[in-house]
Amino acid sequence: MERSQIVALMQYGHSSISKLLLDYYARLGIKETEMMLLLHIHRFIEDNHPFPTPVELSERMSITDKECSELLRSLIKKDFLRMEDNQDEDQVMYETYSLTPLYERIIQEMYHENENESGSASNEDG
Amino acid sequence: MERSQIVALMQYGHSSISKLLLDYYARLGIKETEMMLLLHIHRFIEDNHPFPTPVELSERMSITDKECSELLRSLIKKDFLRMEDNQDEDQVMYETYSLTPLYERIIQEMYHENENESGSASNEDG
Amino acid sequence: MERSQIVALMQYGHSSISKLLLDYYARLGIKETEMMLLLHIHRFIEDNHPFPTPVELSERMSITDKECSELLRSLIKKDFLRMEDNQDEDQVMYETYSLTPLYERIIQEMYHENENESGSASNEDG
Amino acid sequence: MERSQIVALMQYGHSSISKLLLDYYARLGIKETEMMLLLHIHRFIEDNHPFPTPVELSERMSITDKECSELLRSLIKKDFLRMEDNQDEDQVMYETYSLTPLYERIIQEMYHENENESGSASNEDG
Repeated sequence: MERSQIVALMQYGHSSISKLLLDYYARLGIKETEMMLLLHIHRFIEDNHPFPTPVELSERMSITDKECSELLRSLIKKDFLRMEDNQDEDQVMYETYSLTPLYERIIQEMYHENENESGSASNEDG
Repeated sequence: MERSQIVALMQYGHSSISKLLLDYYARLGIKETEMMLLLHIHRFIEDNHPFPTPVELSERMSITDKECSELLRSLIKKDFLRMEDNQDEDQVMYETYSLTPLYERIIQEMYHENENESGSASNEDG
Repeated sequence: MERSQIVALMQYGHSSISKLLLDYYARLGIKETEMMLLLHIHRFIEDNHPFPTPVELSERMSITDKECSELLRSLIKKDFLRMEDNQDEDQVMYETYSLTPLYERIIQEMYHENENESGSASNEDG
Repeated sequence: MERSQIVALMQYGHSSISKLLLDYYARLGIKETEMMLLLHIHRFIEDNHPFPTPVELSERMSITDKECSELLRSLIKKDFLRMEDNQDEDQVMYETYSLTPLYERIIQEMYHENENESGSASNEDG
């Protein structure tokens, strides 16, 4: 293996995923296939491509674009995912996905917990 | 919401996931539930707890610990995951999971591709 | 280069750093050498070693352990860093560093800005 | 603090930094101010803006754009940073920074070490 290929591998890139998502998705009733779809969307947003198509998403998944569309619809309906309208500098409208409702649900879940258990949301790591 | 709670949320921690894993798992025949299990193991390894039990894993997933055990067995059999024997400073043996075979399969997949397409493994991000 | 060495390189690990730290440290009056020291501490906290010594820190830096001690003292005095007392399960006391005051200062800075400019803290990325 | 502001803070974004960079920069003779500059460039590359100006970089740092230009020149001269010519789909040329030489130097350093110490590049974290 060439040195240049190794360096390319090392610079392929990493996606930073909040441990909150990993810790709380199941308690919110999200299945693993749904969560992987949300992680792919998170990564597309990180990469400044915030409105991937079902085809683009399904290319990286083991499900078809049709199944992908259905999952997207279902996640929006259950309020884990949102489509938002935006406007660029030239007033052209464009749509993006937002994971804001997912984070809101997690905060809600943590607080509900805390009220009941009077525990804390720490697990601080810096 | 208290300032201290907000700061705790901000410091909850993030897991760094190689985009190679996100881009290649489906091509290797890994399903989304299996990939989420591997991501949980990756996170336990990052947290210096490299041999989580099926119970610990299933607590964060929508599957039972029994289903978790079966998935672990199947991932090991298909050579995406490995159990390794280690020895600590006092010669006490302990086991850890290793994702090394998964990375090896991805490199293999990328090279096979490159041979056929004479493309490159770039997607460099710094 | 051996395949096993390449895979070891790929699994060397990544540290997730909030873009808030990168965007705001200079506005808070933190110098680059101080910020690198805080990033090393952040990484030690991530690695479950939350109270590195000046020697351990200076081994990864271009400054001496004595300069490191002075910087630590100065960062604590300026309230960017805090030492916290903790107790483990056996009631043994131990100390940890906490970056909580740094995050608090950043939130303060963002709000102060927002009040003056009525801008927003978005830059949302997923 | 509003719920929406908290969620915006949580989604502000994280930069994934290889622990190799944190572990090896000082041994390569890179100073903390230079390393912070390289981390800012790494983050701009991650954000698909791979050729930030000295002004853009200095806005996030405690140094002036002139000092920034000098550091950039010096890092290029010492072969830690490279400027690369690229061509977009319409054959328009554009320049980007590349951290490839830095990663190459780190690999070199690790191997030199290993030859002398017959140690290994592990520190595997998943």
